[in-house]
Amino acid sequence: MKANFLSKMGQRIAEPPISWLMHAALSRPKLISLAAGFTDSASLPVVEARAALDQMLRSPQSARSALQYGSTAGDTALRRLTARYLQRLDGVTAHDRFHSPERLLITSGSQQLLYMTTEALCDEGDVVLVEDPTYFVYLSILQSRGVRARAVRLDRDGLDLAHLEAVLQSLKSSGELRRVKLLYLVSYFQNPTGVTTGFEKKAAALKLLKKFEPAAGHPIYLLEDAAYRGLRFAGRDVPSALTVRGAADRVIYTGTFSKPFATGARVGYGILPEPVYTTVLRIKGNHDFGTANLLQQLFVRALASGSYAKHGVRLQKRYAHKARVMKQAIEKYFPAGVEWWAPEGGLYFWARLPRHIPTGVKSKVFQTALRNNVLYVPGELCYADDPARRKPNHEMRISFGNASEEDIRKGIARLGKVLKRLLL
Amino acid sequence: MKANFLSKMGQRIAEPPISWLMHAALSRPKLISLAAGFTDSASLPVVEARAALDQMLRSPQSARSALQYGSTAGDTALRRLTARYLQRLDGVTAHDRFHSPERLLITSGSQQLLYMTTEALCDEGDVVLVEDPTYFVYLSILQSRGVRARAVRLDRDGLDLAHLEAVLQSLKSSGELRRVKLLYLVSYFQNPTGVTTGFEKKAAALKLLKKFEPAAGHPIYLLEDAAYRGLRFAGRDVPSALTVRGAADRVIYTGTFSKPFATGARVGYGILPEPVYTTVLRIKGNHDFGTANLLQQLFVRALASGSYAKHGVRLQKRYAHKARVMKQAIEKYFPAGVEWWAPEGGLYFWARLPRHIPTGVKSKVFQTALRNNVLYVPGELCYADDPARRKPNHEMRISFGNASEEDIRKGIARLGKVLKRLLL
Repeated sequence: MKANFLSKMGQRIAEPPISWLMHAALSRPKLISLAAGFTDSASLPVVEARAALDQMLRSPQSARSALQYGSTAGDTALRRLTARYLQRLDGVTAHDRFHSPERLLITSGSQQLLYMTTEALCDEGDVVLVEDPTYFVYLSILQSRGVRARAVRLDRDGLDLAHLEAVLQSLKSSGELRRVKLLYLVSYFQNPTGVTTGFEKKAAALKLLKKFEPAAGHPIYLLEDAAYRGLRFAGRDVPSALTVRGAADRVIYTGTFSKPFATGARVGYGILPEPVYTTVLRIKGNHDFGTANLLQQLFVRALASGSYAKHGVRLQKRYAHKARVMKQAIEKYFPAGVEWWAPEGGLYFWARLPRHIPTGVKSKVFQTALRNNVLYVPGELCYADDPARRKPNHEMRISFGNASEEDIRKGIARLGKVLKRLLL
Repeated sequence: MKANFLSKMGQRIAEPPISWLMHAALSRPKLISLAAGFTDSASLPVVEARAALDQMLRSPQSARSALQYGSTAGDTALRRLTARYLQRLDGVTAHDRFHSPERLLITSGSQQLLYMTTEALCDEGDVVLVEDPTYFVYLSILQSRGVRARAVRLDRDGLDLAHLEAVLQSLKSSGELRRVKLLYLVSYFQNPTGVTTGFEKKAAALKLLKKFEPAAGHPIYLLEDAAYRGLRFAGRDVPSALTVRGAADRVIYTGTFSKPFATGARVGYGILPEPVYTTVLRIKGNHDFGTANLLQQLFVRALASGSYAKHGVRLQKRYAHKARVMKQAIEKYFPAGVEWWAPEGGLYFWARLPRHIPTGVKSKVFQTALRNNVLYVPGELCYADDPARRKPNHEMRISFGNASEEDIRKGIARLGKVLKRLLL
């Protein structure tokens, strides 16, 4: 595949680790996949989507506006509704200048915002700090661009601040701090661990970044990926980093309407400070000059009518139930010696075997699980290539998002059997 | 706006020329815009879109599949329907290996394919050959990436082959041929000139590119942008470059379903040879891991039911009429000394003033037109920065896409008045 006439990115870009898993799934019809990041199919808002689309297309005037090009930044009404939605979530007033439609950009899923923000800020050789482990598609973005990821330890309660400081200090000592552009943080029910980083930690992380800015010679941004924020089913919401006093101008916040509603309608958004906002807006102009207006109008109606919020509540109950089913199954079937984390939202459990038992695609655990028709995401896929530590390979991401209750029970039972056999 | 902590792209990327025009339009409510590339609002397929969406959401099973994530390459049924559609257009059998679902990638408009193809092939300092003039957003993509555009003259009947050879020869002489990655050709009713490059010319261009490949040391691709192909209203369709014998493995073909149907539903596609296909597919995985499934399913239904094709016929009649209205108005109101080209499809007329009369945004012509509430796209915005020639600045792109018949007449009358005053 490596052809020297491709661009550097073209030559660098690797097969996404997840496609191998998907191929494996396709060739085994009886396989139960606890690997996919798909959302729950049974609870997709069919009635709500139909009502919103019907309302939109019933009047010729609104139909025509939905079927025509929009603007690059996104529909004005949707940006206003999104700002209001975030104001309410974060408990700020409509006058808060960091929760403003002017700073909002509508994108094709929050993924696109991650991509464009990285384009706007990072050159080959630059450094992005990431959680250890983190969202593997973001690692692919960095890898394809030749941007180096530096891993910051993650505890059960979020980012390890002492380690963040140590990493920044070591980058300062090695003279690389000027290459550090941002800290990427999946702050709510993180993919893959389900961990949430609390408000105090986000505030402290921003303070640390600011502390190192003089040595870096430029702003170091916090890219807060809140893709799973709408999927909380236990505990209380955490305000975003945009509400940290005196630091919101260093926060790039991204969220999505797709996961808490319909992933087939890809609409995400970002809040960005200048000059990043204008830069990303221009990049978006080159990518696609605006997200499909029809999808934007769908969310305008779902948000304005309240059906988006109502569906969110229903979805939270559904995921709470599925997470409970998975928890009970894990308690019943997993052997002692497996540490696991249950989340308060999102789609993932995280399990950790004893350090000497690998879980990667070539491991005995993975292969035996596959033969027994159950699939998980090996933890090692979620770790950056960081020379500062050996890559852990004894963990697994287990999703309750798409599987039915029965498949969750069966899948965990199969996985538990494999683990018992190999651990005991 | 230039901040040194932005990436090289971030620092390079300029305000899109068109946004200034759009601002101008917004601040003048009585302005008639013959500048926008929007399609005809009055003929948007409201009934057809509603029927397709209703059909999709009526059954829970198809509804759920439309509201869930799809795959990165795009929906299998849509790729099959797209392949069949292109086979029919190009008059080849279902066995033709260059019109195959396996080579098809579904994208968020054809714009996204242009972006990703350029990412896959071009590094900073590489060279892309473009028509002179060409689609200005593609020039923005190149500019933002530090890719150099080299201009190839365009005649009334398409690409100037002798000039293409001369440009390639001169790049060979200067040792830069190894930096040449592709020839970008908007082959049907080109934006901005309305010109179509015929089949023989495309075949000859491919032959020329092949001739220079040994000296380049790698393939030189033809990126055929067929975005306007579905908007023909006179004359006969021209087969794509994919049908050129022995050269289809050098063709990257891109088209869109949006323009001939609903621009608010952004779905485009590309046909790419290996290894470009796999590379662009991986890049798409990083951009958004797949175009919104809801929109793809909309086109599956519109294509399968025949409503897409029927709407296309209706649209062609509508544009034929609007183009006739514009032609008659130009004949009536434009002074002698203005050369203009009427197209056989697409959305644009191209007009050329005597060489000494500039039409750019600061020119007397543009400013007087604006004061008289009519807007066009200055030709100079569509020319690459090429040191080999002075940038022409005496032309204008005039669109009949979005304006009503009445506005077309009035707008051309206003423009004609300005031109008469300044030319005579």
